[in-house]
Amino acid sequence: MKVGIIGGTGSIGEGLARRICIGGKFDVVKIGSRDPSKAEVAAKEVVDTLTQRECGCATACTGGSNEEACNADIIILSIPFDKVASTVETLGAALFENKVIISLINPMQRFPKDKYFLPDPPAEGSAALAIKKILPPSAKLVTAFNNVASGKWMELDEELDYSVCICGDDEDAKKAAMELVSSVSKLQPLDAGPLELSRVIEGITPLVITLAIRNKLKDVGVYFK
Amino acid sequence: MKVGIIGGTGSIGEGLARRICIGGKFDVVKIGSRDPSKAEVAAKEVVDTLTQRECGCATACTGGSNEEACNADIIILSIPFDKVASTVETLGAALFENKVIISLINPMQRFPKDKYFLPDPPAEGSAALAIKKILPPSAKLVTAFNNVASGKWMELDEELDYSVCICGDDEDAKKAAMELVSSVSKLQPLDAGPLELSRVIEGITPLVITLAIRNKLKDVGVYFK
Repeated sequence: MKVGIIGGTGSIGEGLARRICIGGKFDVVKIGSRDPSKAEVAAKEVVDTLTQRECGCATACTGGSNEEACNADIIILSIPFDKVASTVETLGAALFENKVIISLINPMQRFPKDKYFLPDPPAEGSAALAIKKILPPSAKLVTAFNNVASGKWMELDEELDYSVCICGDDEDAKKAAMELVSSVSKLQPLDAGPLELSRVIEGITPLVITLAIRNKLKDVGVYFK
Repeated sequence: MKVGIIGGTGSIGEGLARRICIGGKFDVVKIGSRDPSKAEVAAKEVVDTLTQRECGCATACTGGSNEEACNADIIILSIPFDKVASTVETLGAALFENKVIISLINPMQRFPKDKYFLPDPPAEGSAALAIKKILPPSAKLVTAFNNVASGKWMELDEELDYSVCICGDDEDAKKAAMELVSSVSKLQPLDAGPLELSRVIEGITPLVITLAIRNKLKDVGVYFK
């Protein structure tokens, strides 16, 4: 199984690549970027970092264009919500046909003066519900990784032991996403029902950031048990 | 400090009464009901249960009308969302003037065929935001206890060690709610910012129920840490 990360040069994208490569359960992780040379640098950084840690790159990591990252079984969208429509349009919807697509996107609004964040979903109710409309009908969209504290992705000494809610309308795609989540550190995937539940899941991230600011906590994680 | 529970004869209301009485940090817990005799029975049950457990009723517990329950510093609304407007109208808004009001209400929709629940908020965005409009401006509304697994309230052998998100627009009211939450079992209160965050907090309960159904878990708790 091949995993592609669109927008894989950000800290979450590259952190994800590192974590999936260490897990070693997939054939290759392809970091994609609008600027392929940046993606190549990021991929080299992943390989070098894991080699230095002597944990090796159990899964190969390559860098290239976003088109190349789409040549995968699972495509992770790691770009801001307002870039999704133009990115899918530029790449062409055909690249997403029959693929498992993972959204970890949480649109939110910041209120710095009063120290809180709120969800800022589009009219569809969530980013995922809006993205589903943009993708071809054969694309199998799920949400995953939404609420993982962003500061911890890159820090490989940090264990990620959070609960990860996975919602989507295709059971096989959810199973694939659950396997991917299970391969990362100690993340615990949970079936959160159909894509409609993304209304709630995406909103938990602005809540968690608000909790961190207001209670002087760092990298707050979410656990359901 | 006196605590009143409107609709205190349900399992969450009576469970709350038991837990607050054991905590022993308040002067009296007044269980209210439209039918005062039912509230008297519930209050006697609280006292008898705690006496049998030999933990005693560290805080007094009485039962009576919802009007009597409003003669308190903190009033907990433990009634369904669609009963709030008529209850406040019947009791008269004056009873709520200057009080700390706690809403633990989560409006939701059930989809039994597909095994999931969704939030079902009013146009205001959450039950709490709608209730704020019904109450007099001097009432200080906060949300608390929303996501505590309902099955565990009455089971005094069960420790409640969950995170409890408290949001509201009055800092003193939030502090009072945090003290109340801290007095119950091992609940951990967290400042979740202004009442706007109730949009997210109320939605977590249908998510948690969906997680329980789909992952064959029982009484799923929420932890932010």
